[in-house]
Amino acid sequence: MRTVALLAERLRVEERLLQQAFAAVGWEAQLRDPNELAIPLTEEAIDLPAVALDRERATSEATALAALLAARGTVVVNRPATTRLLADRLAFLRHLVLAQIPTPPTLVAFGEAATFRAIEALGYPVYLKPLVVDLRMPIAYVEDPDAAEALVEHRRVLGDERAVLVQKVVAEPEAVRRLVIVGNELVAVVRGRGEEPLALEDLAPWRAVASALIGRLGSGVYTVDAVMTPSGMVVISAENLQAFRDLAELGVPVAERIAAFVLEQVRVGRSEDEGQR
Amino acid sequence: MRTVALLAERLRVEERLLQQAFAAVGWEAQLRDPNELAIPLTEEAIDLPAVALDRERATSEATALAALLAARGTVVVNRPATTRLLADRLAFLRHLVLAQIPTPPTLVAFGEAATFRAIEALGYPVYLKPLVVDLRMPIAYVEDPDAAEALVEHRRVLGDERAVLVQKVVAEPEAVRRLVIVGNELVAVVRGRGEEPLALEDLAPWRAVASALIGRLGSGVYTVDAVMTPSGMVVISAENLQAFRDLAELGVPVAERIAAFVLEQVRVGRSEDEGQR
Repeated sequence: MRTVALLAERLRVEERLLQQAFAAVGWEAQLRDPNELAIPLTEEAIDLPAVALDRERATSEATALAALLAARGTVVVNRPATTRLLADRLAFLRHLVLAQIPTPPTLVAFGEAATFRAIEALGYPVYLKPLVVDLRMPIAYVEDPDAAEALVEHRRVLGDERAVLVQKVVAEPEAVRRLVIVGNELVAVVRGRGEEPLALEDLAPWRAVASALIGRLGSGVYTVDAVMTPSGMVVISAENLQAFRDLAELGVPVAERIAAFVLEQVRVGRSEDEGQR
Repeated sequence: MRTVALLAERLRVEERLLQQAFAAVGWEAQLRDPNELAIPLTEEAIDLPAVALDRERATSEATALAALLAARGTVVVNRPATTRLLADRLAFLRHLVLAQIPTPPTLVAFGEAATFRAIEALGYPVYLKPLVVDLRMPIAYVEDPDAAEALVEHRRVLGDERAVLVQKVVAEPEAVRRLVIVGNELVAVVRGRGEEPLALEDLAPWRAVASALIGRLGSGVYTVDAVMTPSGMVVISAENLQAFRDLAELGVPVAERIAAFVLEQVRVGRSEDEGQR
């Protein structure tokens, strides 16, 4: 029986759903805690998974792990280049700007004085976001000058953060839709999160933007937050797809789709290897 | 008179030396504090320098700034790709390994348990280094299991750090030589630092490795730490060249070389632009 490593610290509901989905196609999905991994930079032999599905948040560390595994021949989902874009907010936004996919007005401020100037230029409210996804540095919602003063100071003390994305808030949080991408396909559009119950929405109005996004980010397993504004669709952010238990309860076969996509990547990877011989 | 922006928070001795060197070739070098910069991601008009010399530590933030400036048409020294390699220790080492330039035995450990295992595998002493240059997270020298225990715990608390480079210490600190690169040339090899007086060494034994390094990192203004071991030369790390006042006192015309290199980049950049018309 072939095995796939689920890169995660613990088995959550989602990993159990994945184990079932992989078992249904004759594969065993085993938890592999990234905290236990030490990978030499040179080519020494070491026991690494042949196939791995990253179940953690996309961060710079996750990008490094994916790149090292891929360099050793592991088939990794998501691909390192995709994880890098999910982990690097600035690179993600620059990619979308180049592809002419609308994003909220955003400035990169390289210090406190510049941050205040950028906030004034965009007008309240704004988000302050670290340039890269950093579990230590949350996103801050800034609604007025007093909040700006307190937050900029707090962030400096918290993490010696200097550069920050200052991004205009283009819609109320409840207007945001989450696009769920698996493989090359938009598999769900979700409204609501956290305390609110999830609701599924029609995929049709989002297909064009989803297809443009997949063209830029690559096929994979991830979510994209976007809003419909009076002037059209705007893409806000993207991340690795971690939570999907609510979707499963609503009948969307996310785990099954992920398993099918991983198997497809294994087939593609194997035929690419054979092509090189 | 043409101007070049010195990207730095304040004028140190080195920036004054640079101002003199640029003045001698008819250019004005002006301090430009990156903390004051806010750059929109879209193409709005904004006052940015035409030519910039990065005088700060190479970090992810410095890489982002260089990339944004270069995308707007600024001639930036170092190039963004070079700054990225100076800021990203893992990417730097992987580059060298691919180029078969010897580096110390190094493992990437993705958590505490893996870090202890990696240390045991390499043997004491080792360095613990963040994957990317982070002013919050210093390099730690680990000489025995007690120190390992204390340091790994301390680093976790300090920065929620999980992934770390575990690198074998291949030579005593006093055996390390600093190679100073400006443009495409090795301009000095330095022994001693900090409290010790600097001493210049013969360039000849280091030319081959310097040339290989410049081939991988690109031309630019940076330093590389390396040691001669019984089994040959080993490259340890690299960073942006910030401090060179001691070299100037020893008669090495570093500021003049840098000014000449920047002017050359401006000429190259201009002719490339013209070639595209």
